[in-house]
Amino acid sequence: MRIAAFGEIMMRLTPPEYLMLEQTKELRLDFTGTGVNILSNLAHFGTQTSLLTNLPDNRLGEAAKASVRQLGIQDCWIGSLGDHIGSYFAEMGFGPRPTQVTYQNRRNSSFGISGASDYDLDAFLEEIDLIYICGISLSLTEKTREAALVLAEKAHKKGKKVCFDFNFRPSLNEAHGVSLMQEQYEKMLPYCDVVFGSHRDLTDLLGMELDQTLDVSEQFERVVRQFMAKYQIEHFAGTIRQGEGDRRYLTGFLFDAENYVQAAPRQIINLDRIGAGDGYAAGILLGYSESWSLVETVEFATANGVLAHTIQGDVPLTTRKQVKHLMEQPTVDLIR
Amino acid sequence: MRIAAFGEIMMRLTPPEYLMLEQTKELRLDFTGTGVNILSNLAHFGTQTSLLTNLPDNRLGEAAKASVRQLGIQDCWIGSLGDHIGSYFAEMGFGPRPTQVTYQNRRNSSFGISGASDYDLDAFLEEIDLIYICGISLSLTEKTREAALVLAEKAHKKGKKVCFDFNFRPSLNEAHGVSLMQEQYEKMLPYCDVVFGSHRDLTDLLGMELDQTLDVSEQFERVVRQFMAKYQIEHFAGTIRQGEGDRRYLTGFLFDAENYVQAAPRQIINLDRIGAGDGYAAGILLGYSESWSLVETVEFATANGVLAHTIQGDVPLTTRKQVKHLMEQPTVDLIR
Amino acid sequence: MRIAAFGEIMMRLTPPEYLMLEQTKELRLDFTGTGVNILSNLAHFGTQTSLLTNLPDNRLGEAAKASVRQLGIQDCWIGSLGDHIGSYFAEMGFGPRPTQVTYQNRRNSSFGISGASDYDLDAFLEEIDLIYICGISLSLTEKTREAALVLAEKAHKKGKKVCFDFNFRPSLNEAHGVSLMQEQYEKMLPYCDVVFGSHRDLTDLLGMELDQTLDVSEQFERVVRQFMAKYQIEHFAGTIRQGEGDRRYLTGFLFDAENYVQAAPRQIINLDRIGAGDGYAAGILLGYSESWSLVETVEFATANGVLAHTIQGDVPLTTRKQVKHLMEQPTVDLIR
Amino acid sequence: MRIAAFGEIMMRLTPPEYLMLEQTKELRLDFTGTGVNILSNLAHFGTQTSLLTNLPDNRLGEAAKASVRQLGIQDCWIGSLGDHIGSYFAEMGFGPRPTQVTYQNRRNSSFGISGASDYDLDAFLEEIDLIYICGISLSLTEKTREAALVLAEKAHKKGKKVCFDFNFRPSLNEAHGVSLMQEQYEKMLPYCDVVFGSHRDLTDLLGMELDQTLDVSEQFERVVRQFMAKYQIEHFAGTIRQGEGDRRYLTGFLFDAENYVQAAPRQIINLDRIGAGDGYAAGILLGYSESWSLVETVEFATANGVLAHTIQGDVPLTTRKQVKHLMEQPTVDLIR
Amino acid sequence: MRIAAFGEIMMRLTPPEYLMLEQTKELRLDFTGTGVNILSNLAHFGTQTSLLTNLPDNRLGEAAKASVRQLGIQDCWIGSLGDHIGSYFAEMGFGPRPTQVTYQNRRNSSFGISGASDYDLDAFLEEIDLIYICGISLSLTEKTREAALVLAEKAHKKGKKVCFDFNFRPSLNEAHGVSLMQEQYEKMLPYCDVVFGSHRDLTDLLGMELDQTLDVSEQFERVVRQFMAKYQIEHFAGTIRQGEGDRRYLTGFLFDAENYVQAAPRQIINLDRIGAGDGYAAGILLGYSESWSLVETVEFATANGVLAHTIQGDVPLTTRKQVKHLMEQPTVDLIR
Amino acid sequence: MRIAAFGEIMMRLTPPEYLMLEQTKELRLDFTGTGVNILSNLAHFGTQTSLLTNLPDNRLGEAAKASVRQLGIQDCWIGSLGDHIGSYFAEMGFGPRPTQVTYQNRRNSSFGISGASDYDLDAFLEEIDLIYICGISLSLTEKTREAALVLAEKAHKKGKKVCFDFNFRPSLNEAHGVSLMQEQYEKMLPYCDVVFGSHRDLTDLLGMELDQTLDVSEQFERVVRQFMAKYQIEHFAGTIRQGEGDRRYLTGFLFDAENYVQAAPRQIINLDRIGAGDGYAAGILLGYSESWSLVETVEFATANGVLAHTIQGDVPLTTRKQVKHLMEQPTVDLIR
Repeated sequence: MRIAAFGEIMMRLTPPEYLMLEQTKELRLDFTGTGVNILSNLAHFGTQTSLLTNLPDNRLGEAAKASVRQLGIQDCWIGSLGDHIGSYFAEMGFGPRPTQVTYQNRRNSSFGISGASDYDLDAFLEEIDLIYICGISLSLTEKTREAALVLAEKAHKKGKKVCFDFNFRPSLNEAHGVSLMQEQYEKMLPYCDVVFGSHRDLTDLLGMELDQTLDVSEQFERVVRQFMAKYQIEHFAGTIRQGEGDRRYLTGFLFDAENYVQAAPRQIINLDRIGAGDGYAAGILLGYSESWSLVETVEFATANGVLAHTIQGDVPLTTRKQVKHLMEQPTVDLIR
Repeated sequence: MRIAAFGEIMMRLTPPEYLMLEQTKELRLDFTGTGVNILSNLAHFGTQTSLLTNLPDNRLGEAAKASVRQLGIQDCWIGSLGDHIGSYFAEMGFGPRPTQVTYQNRRNSSFGISGASDYDLDAFLEEIDLIYICGISLSLTEKTREAALVLAEKAHKKGKKVCFDFNFRPSLNEAHGVSLMQEQYEKMLPYCDVVFGSHRDLTDLLGMELDQTLDVSEQFERVVRQFMAKYQIEHFAGTIRQGEGDRRYLTGFLFDAENYVQAAPRQIINLDRIGAGDGYAAGILLGYSESWSLVETVEFATANGVLAHTIQGDVPLTTRKQVKHLMEQPTVDLIR
Repeated sequence: MRIAAFGEIMMRLTPPEYLMLEQTKELRLDFTGTGVNILSNLAHFGTQTSLLTNLPDNRLGEAAKASVRQLGIQDCWIGSLGDHIGSYFAEMGFGPRPTQVTYQNRRNSSFGISGASDYDLDAFLEEIDLIYICGISLSLTEKTREAALVLAEKAHKKGKKVCFDFNFRPSLNEAHGVSLMQEQYEKMLPYCDVVFGSHRDLTDLLGMELDQTLDVSEQFERVVRQFMAKYQIEHFAGTIRQGEGDRRYLTGFLFDAENYVQAAPRQIINLDRIGAGDGYAAGILLGYSESWSLVETVEFATANGVLAHTIQGDVPLTTRKQVKHLMEQPTVDLIR
Repeated sequence: MRIAAFGEIMMRLTPPEYLMLEQTKELRLDFTGTGVNILSNLAHFGTQTSLLTNLPDNRLGEAAKASVRQLGIQDCWIGSLGDHIGSYFAEMGFGPRPTQVTYQNRRNSSFGISGASDYDLDAFLEEIDLIYICGISLSLTEKTREAALVLAEKAHKKGKKVCFDFNFRPSLNEAHGVSLMQEQYEKMLPYCDVVFGSHRDLTDLLGMELDQTLDVSEQFERVVRQFMAKYQIEHFAGTIRQGEGDRRYLTGFLFDAENYVQAAPRQIINLDRIGAGDGYAAGILLGYSESWSLVETVEFATANGVLAHTIQGDVPLTTRKQVKHLMEQPTVDLIR
Repeated sequence: MRIAAFGEIMMRLTPPEYLMLEQTKELRLDFTGTGVNILSNLAHFGTQTSLLTNLPDNRLGEAAKASVRQLGIQDCWIGSLGDHIGSYFAEMGFGPRPTQVTYQNRRNSSFGISGASDYDLDAFLEEIDLIYICGISLSLTEKTREAALVLAEKAHKKGKKVCFDFNFRPSLNEAHGVSLMQEQYEKMLPYCDVVFGSHRDLTDLLGMELDQTLDVSEQFERVVRQFMAKYQIEHFAGTIRQGEGDRRYLTGFLFDAENYVQAAPRQIINLDRIGAGDGYAAGILLGYSESWSLVETVEFATANGVLAHTIQGDVPLTTRKQVKHLMEQPTVDLIR
Repeated sequence: MRIAAFGEIMMRLTPPEYLMLEQTKELRLDFTGTGVNILSNLAHFGTQTSLLTNLPDNRLGEAAKASVRQLGIQDCWIGSLGDHIGSYFAEMGFGPRPTQVTYQNRRNSSFGISGASDYDLDAFLEEIDLIYICGISLSLTEKTREAALVLAEKAHKKGKKVCFDFNFRPSLNEAHGVSLMQEQYEKMLPYCDVVFGSHRDLTDLLGMELDQTLDVSEQFERVVRQFMAKYQIEHFAGTIRQGEGDRRYLTGFLFDAENYVQAAPRQIINLDRIGAGDGYAAGILLGYSESWSLVETVEFATANGVLAHTIQGDVPLTTRKQVKHLMEQPTVDLIR
């Protein structure tokens, strides 16, 4: 399956060795973004991947493309428009000090100012089998919202699989309020086959109601079933984070038309607190694209998500061999 | 004399060791800008300095203020507005390979969206004696243009000295064309006492005409005299770069009401090709603020300009002792 | 309240990535010292701060002043004397390997050779409301001892608040023995309003006796009350470190004339094992200077002390927002 | 024209800041090789490029492929064999101190142990128009020699263009002596269309004789004409380095069936003394593949060769825009 | 006691800050190897040490010798042969992500191609009292196997102590199978006085049988006693790693002719997961060479092994003072 | 010939990439000193060398010794005393900006407080053939002056060769004045065999008079002859620096009892402006110790001096092969 993503390439600037911005003049530059992260991981798993986005036609655009290629992603559908790449600074936390992310101007980026007509969507869709769309496109600007919706509709019509990730961040939507956002999500969902989301997305954003007469765990399953039925969703997946003392655990869940599975929880040990979910999503998409069983898929995706936490930066670089090593020999901490 | 500047604080991101962007993930972060550069240099000369600008109220704004303080500039007139700092990436050239600067979105920066009413200009002007305004404010946005003109007018009315630098960059003004820019400069100049500029600024931007019947050197002097008379300018200063084989030389010139002096040319050896003129301007302002003779002033400023080329980054950090050392013992290349 | 400190600026030289000195040629240079640390933290909390010290009149002195300004501390009371800055090398420990500090020549530093007459104490005291004096001044040299005592006496006479930190290090006093030191501390304490210290300082250094008929916890409270009464101390504060398995916890305590409060213990997770106490002291001084309740003060100071452990270097750079975040949302480890 | 190369990917390990190996523990790792260099430059010029080679199936092989992709080269014809990548350490010279290259074991590398049957040559040749073969393949091992000759023969038979670079290094051939090498080159040349070489290659390696009755410059032209006629070579190109005082200049030459042109000499200013010729070759191949005039081609290639000297590492990363900038505005040393 | 080792010097190349190879171009270069590690640690304990090996006569060989000297090891018995140093890349793991070691071509290294006649074994043995031989020599090449056996035999005949470490790595011996290896070990053991090994070495490699009628702990003791008797071994030592929840512990054991002792387990906290055993071995050899009691020896060695885990790189740099500090004041985590 | 030196080990701290102290927190640490520099270079030439000095018994002393060993110098005559190592910060100049050296407290260093009785001079002298003493010992402290004089006298009496370098720095002697210094030098010189110095040392320091009736060049030769006769000096050597336009040249001179030779001038291209003379001195001592002709010696020494300027740091690391390469193939700038 040829997998593509529609999304923004951002610059991530990170001080070394857990330093705060005032403490250093040295920064590490990475090119990142949900689409980049998931596609790169899939490329490392051996999948053919391609990113649809726009970049400025300048030295930063060239450097961004070089980075995307290095990650194993095809750059032939990256166009040129505008003169700005959105960026964020990540001051890495340690222990009780949180990682602090500071965004710089995303809305005026090349991606932010590009609408549907700024891409050759039809030609692009001919060359792929599944398109991943991140929910942030619905929040960022009117242009990105329109582009995402047109793309999803076209893909759906052409019989391509559409994978959508809620990724709803209230902080990006303070201006509009939840009701505008709900409307956009409701426009998008009918085109979708595979959806990543959480309990909160269904209740708080879409306004679905829980059946309080049921057990808590059954409430969740019931509302997901209603959601999947309403929008004809093939698979619904997501993660749950749990704490126990000062340890934290990751569990993934996955629904298809008939079944619901949950992975065995795995302890999270963080090298980098950002970009955790993308490793999980890449794992689910790998299993989906290769028709693995639900259990195989969710266990692999959860192990991959936990490994993503141990890698510097947002971009998971794991291979199948590495994920399987963790699943099969979790106590071997030195390979030679 | 308490000297202040109105201008933008930008981030400069520079790869190490002459590397190009694709070759490294390491960047050096400096906070810079014409105002920052000149004030920092004056502070290193012992002058009390203060910057008038706006920054975002986030971690980047805090880091920028820390950097400004480190350079010796008071940060008490730096306000909070917006959520973005303009930035540029500088790939350092070597030999025939030019230094390549790539700007990222300046117009939406905290400075770019701040107009006159976003500063407390009256209170600010009470605490200073001279205000330096960079011509880029006239080009950047309507807001910065308005702020610069109101500030200059108020300063002039209060009897404060106004120093203005043409700093005209055609590339920043492609949208407007020269005629709009000429108009803005003509509004600004009547408030000004000390002006930095070039031959080309007077002829190409202001449209002044040369007297072709004169010698080339007299043509320049004549047009400067006309310019100074028209706008009641007290001092006019600038630099000339000359080549001889593969060597390059810097000479400064300086006019007052009666005299015109030019410094002995000094060879330029570049460690960093950006920010050269700001060292010269700081030298002129030091002589001006301490009422040195024209010759003393222009020789000091030229030596300082040449030293600025030997320092990494835009910000000249020279002290009086260092400039005098170069003027008095130019062949001593090791001090202990 | 304008808060000042009297103390040494030192150079701290630290190898990167937990390397030992033989393993690297790269060192990180920070300017530090108890006074620097506390004032910088208070400046980040919004307080006006100023450091009284001397530095050499050379490039190192200039660099030290630039660093102090960057931290938000006024450098106008830093004078020039001598030609040496004390330094220490910090090899960062990991797990069971301790952090190893190696001092280089502190006694001949600019600060070490400066006595009371080398500062303009009267003018300085006019511009401040509270002076922080670190007990190390009493141990370092005869000059620093004299300067500290004269300063405290003058401040007390002028009605300024005097804050004193025992900071008694037997290793710095091997030559003199405890009895000389006890004498010096007894000279200092009558001038003091706020004192930082420990159980051990009162018993081992000052020779106060515990009432063995009481409970252990009452013994401590009783001896503190005697101490405060004897020297007319307004507030007495300090920290207690406790272990539980391989976890370690920090608790702060604070006495005023009538009450005694202790903070809830907070787990310590160390990025840097040096300079922990200064974050706590800054928190106490903030609450004191703004007349917070004892409980508010001690909880804030303890949270700040724990955060100081998660920051590279000795200097705490926390803001009120960051401390409050930890107090209110301790499990949120990623902010965007 | 789809251009491919057959050649080794090596690791280059370089100490920073002109340090020698004993002076540092830090090294920079680049993946390089004549084929990598030329293809990467062509990819930056917009050409579709592909590398034929083998790498170990381990983490180093994965990292090498990621690097090749980042440079814009397709990695789909890079196979897996063996467990070793050849490497060299480059201690960068300065002034009179030469750059010192130390090779580590090239003959046992994945490339060194791969013969013709270890590649799918027929399928590969279907997808390209021109194949570049570096002469080092003839010297390295028997396997690489055989692979190069079979590849050239097959390409020639299929009507693909074959470009060959003498790149004769006596030091790599001490064991065999020149006569064996001459024989190999004579086997290769009949398959070739475009050849890079020097005067010395024709006389010392191939044993061709100069006509001493002619002028020196005519001698060279005559022997090249004989060489081109003998092997039916379409184009012959190379560079000449000249000194004048302590300046050094690069000139390129280019022959086709009828004409001989030489570029205007350009001064060489070295940031990195290795990999100079590959920039020139990439320029020639660009002109060749786009049917430029000889003069256009040789001037572009020479300018590109000079730029390659100003870039860290062996791999030229210049774009058409950058080369044209140097050709059109050689004195502009700062672009913004 | 003058202690020497026979073994390979390798290059270890490590990316910084837990980065994977694709994520960085920066590598740290260390010269390492079992012999280097143990001798360096003994030199830091004050023992005179010397390494017997061969290196290429080039810049890498010079750099390797400089590094060995820096570690305190005499380089006068390091000869010149061949042109290659074996290397490995270590991608440092974090949490559940294992450290990944990738070897590059060891068999063609200067050490790998050197047999007994390439060393002056007789002269060398005159100047030492104990020779340490690592079992990897028996696996690497025929040359190293022969050299190790001749060296051991000669040393034994001259009455020098021979210390041998099984260090059996099945992965290095896939070609030969266990039976060839068993034969080599059986040739070596009769010359040995002190042996490092594990339960598995005795049963799986040497094929010794456990007495299943005994308790598990007695089985081990019994088989060791049989082994020591068979080969006249003076001391047998090794380590056991145990897990308890997510904590891991190290325990050392040591047998002499009559007694068997085991150290109290110490928690392992890893900065670097490679080279752990060499610190333990150095501790045992120190106690042996100074005739400490078994208990003193094994406790010191275990503490040293745990410290070795907290040091970057393979080479333990601990001093007696540091080990004693851990044994006596394990909770003091900051020394000044 | 076994060559030793008596002198201080200092720490040199250097910011990277020509940065000034305020611009970076990164410093490079080297251990250096005239004795270290010369001995290291001789060790790289294959001579057995040994340093006589004292260091503190702490982590810095250990690191310094490791560094000295790495340079090839025996550390067995380095004793322990005091607790301080002198240091200097070197801000590297560029073009017209001079390199700026800032010293920190040398007089209280372990070396500075050590007198003759703090070394075992007799035992030490038994193991060497030539002792190099740097003139700075005469200026530094009374202790170092006494130690140097006693050492020279003892060496002379035992028939060992004494090599002395004037190295007179007026700045280190401001307190004493020249006359005290002249006296010390006059005490030292009668023990000396080989002396490094300049014209100025003989006239300004020793007060010798020129014969103005002679040509300038003859004046110098005459005064050297008088000097050598007076103190029975075997060889006198030094360097002359000349400028021509903006180029600078180094020439060495060398006298023995009968002859006077001068080397052909070589252009100086500076990577590091400090420590130039030590490379020259090492070259002279090599020729002296191996009884080369004067011409061979002075040409080798001058070439070596020029190479020393191209190496980062004070310590020349050149080998015979490198120096000969420069002498024989000065235009080959890339060796592979």
